[in-house]
Amino acid sequence: MNISFIPGGITAAPGFTASGVHCGIRKNRVKRDLALIMADRECNAAAVYTTNKVKAAPIWLTMENLKNNRAWGIIANSGNANACAPGDTEAAKKTVSALAAATNLSAEDFIVNSTGVIGQTLPVDVITAAIPDLVKALVPDSDTAAEAIMTTDTFPKQAAVQFTLGGKQVTIGGIAKGSGMIHPNMATMFAFLTTDCDISPTLLQDALRASVNRSYNCVSVDGDTSTNDMTAILASGTAGNPGITEKGEDYNAFLQALDAVNLKLAKDIARDGEGATKLITCRVSGASSYEEAITLAKSVITSSLVKAAMFGSDANWGRVLCAMGYSGAAFDPFNVDVSFSSGSQQVSVCKKSEGLPFDEDLATKILSENEVMIDITLHEGNHVAEAYGCDLTYDYVKINGDYRT
Amino acid sequence: MNISFIPGGITAAPGFTASGVHCGIRKNRVKRDLALIMADRECNAAAVYTTNKVKAAPIWLTMENLKNNRAWGIIANSGNANACAPGDTEAAKKTVSALAAATNLSAEDFIVNSTGVIGQTLPVDVITAAIPDLVKALVPDSDTAAEAIMTTDTFPKQAAVQFTLGGKQVTIGGIAKGSGMIHPNMATMFAFLTTDCDISPTLLQDALRASVNRSYNCVSVDGDTSTNDMTAILASGTAGNPGITEKGEDYNAFLQALDAVNLKLAKDIARDGEGATKLITCRVSGASSYEEAITLAKSVITSSLVKAAMFGSDANWGRVLCAMGYSGAAFDPFNVDVSFSSGSQQVSVCKKSEGLPFDEDLATKILSENEVMIDITLHEGNHVAEAYGCDLTYDYVKINGDYRT
Repeated sequence: MNISFIPGGITAAPGFTASGVHCGIRKNRVKRDLALIMADRECNAAAVYTTNKVKAAPIWLTMENLKNNRAWGIIANSGNANACAPGDTEAAKKTVSALAAATNLSAEDFIVNSTGVIGQTLPVDVITAAIPDLVKALVPDSDTAAEAIMTTDTFPKQAAVQFTLGGKQVTIGGIAKGSGMIHPNMATMFAFLTTDCDISPTLLQDALRASVNRSYNCVSVDGDTSTNDMTAILASGTAGNPGITEKGEDYNAFLQALDAVNLKLAKDIARDGEGATKLITCRVSGASSYEEAITLAKSVITSSLVKAAMFGSDANWGRVLCAMGYSGAAFDPFNVDVSFSSGSQQVSVCKKSEGLPFDEDLATKILSENEVMIDITLHEGNHVAEAYGCDLTYDYVKINGDYRT
Repeated sequence: MNISFIPGGITAAPGFTASGVHCGIRKNRVKRDLALIMADRECNAAAVYTTNKVKAAPIWLTMENLKNNRAWGIIANSGNANACAPGDTEAAKKTVSALAAATNLSAEDFIVNSTGVIGQTLPVDVITAAIPDLVKALVPDSDTAAEAIMTTDTFPKQAAVQFTLGGKQVTIGGIAKGSGMIHPNMATMFAFLTTDCDISPTLLQDALRASVNRSYNCVSVDGDTSTNDMTAILASGTAGNPGITEKGEDYNAFLQALDAVNLKLAKDIARDGEGATKLITCRVSGASSYEEAITLAKSVITSSLVKAAMFGSDANWGRVLCAMGYSGAAFDPFNVDVSFSSGSQQVSVCKKSEGLPFDEDLATKILSENEVMIDITLHEGNHVAEAYGCDLTYDYVKINGDYRT
């Protein structure tokens, strides 16, 4: 199938608009902090949420609002997570009520979320005051919305693809934010997606869950699973494709295109992890199952010691084997090959679980690049998986040593 | 029961001697790197090992040697883990063979382990060459042995207690090392213990396992479970106490004394975690079970975000709730109280999972101390657990960004 990346993000599909404004949630930081994504009609909607038992108030409200699998739009603020704070549920409700009033829709028509510090009361009045302007600012351009959801992210994350279904052009676009409290095996951080594809709510949910497992759930920045993670998608059904109502060729095509968008956004989240200087990909091949491969890959990119070694461009592959060993995966610990690569350069450092003599200068050069792959080969089967992370740096400690002020 | 801490460590019990020398495993660092602990007779012996699937060669050899639950001594080097390196098994065997020759004992009479970088061939010749001097240097003082097992540790870790069993004085002493690749739910790092207590091998093993679970397994420095972790104990049986051959009052007394030594050493390991500036204790009370309490406490002290906040003396308690939420424990997320304390000072920051107004200056003062407690109260039962960790600092990143050179 031919999938083409196109410019833009959450408004790439026809019929979707977005906006982002500065409403003043964090008094000491002037930055857009409130984002809105709107469809021109009611859409099929699906979402995947954090697995954290402590869930933010807007997560609970969105779960309620999406019981009918339908939504018109998504509103999200940065600067405050609206979690574990007095009045958090009321604040989320006031937000969607104000949005309903400004759009002549119902409060139940919206997905809502927040990101930022946990435990402080959300100044919801500044949000409700800004909503009329936010609605007026809606345009078929996703730049300001992508910026408004950023917290410690250093660049906005957007992606969009086009492909053909039944002779009709279909578009999927999205925006996302990282960049701390990011850990595999959960829903995700924020990733909001839209599409004009005609697809049933059930299959939309299935596709989103499957794609999240292969993208955001393969990312770790710091091992902390947030209270506010959410991925949500709106499907307007206006592309004119034969409606997808069962799993088959068209569903697979849609899933493949959705994967492309999510994987791009997921890698950007890893690359832009708090304090990160490089994107680390761990690829495990020759595994007896996908489960084994992804478990090993995630364990490696989550290891603080591996991450610190990557920061120092130190080919300390013993830590890679160590992280595999405590992953819980049932691999043969005596038959592991490890190499490091970047672009077309590669250095093998371990064969059959024993160190090889290697060119330290070449290894340092490879590990100093801003995209590094840790390549692990087992000899047990044909399954492959990749996980994505970043290095552990002084700046991660600095950013998180005093985040609230 | 009256348990008294006494000066000294692994040689506190009568009949044990120790030594530590510089044999030159790391060419660029002059530091004692080879330790020996010897009993004056064959002892009952027990050990607990790393759960990492990738186990270092000396771990496998020690498992073999301890099949008869008997040993005369313990030899350990720092500077090289003797793991995943060509010739690692032979190196471990050569070490105990040389020791057997120098002591007129058998190679099977010894516990052996190594700690340091993984994947580089152990220069076993410098070890075997140093063993005669190491044996000659044996004295009833554990300072040089405690120093010789240190890697990135900044201070030696020793503890010893005395108590009475059946009218006889019994002593337990130990030494330990941290301070990276430390994570709960495994065997441990190195902790070597001796006692003159008369106790059966089976009960010695039971007591060691139980005590490890309550001490070292409640510590995390960085979430990485090492390939070389080991706790081992030698019991000479010379104290003259009525031999402990079943679980009962005497066994419980022994276990309580063993706990005291192990907890002291475990806290020292947490306090001296790589780069650490403070000891963080997380105490969970009011839990419905010990399992729930310890799972929550471990999750909190393992969180990179909590650890970075502690470094910054930032009362960011939202991260505490977040780490509880993804721990997997089944607690009520809407009824959690959190406070921070140090010594007699305390500040409450969260009640029923909602933020309280609090004195930020007092919180900063408390969190700037070198021993900080995160106090979590649930309202579900009467179980309590504590876990021990440290803050995440620039120095952790620095130490691990270039550990091999």
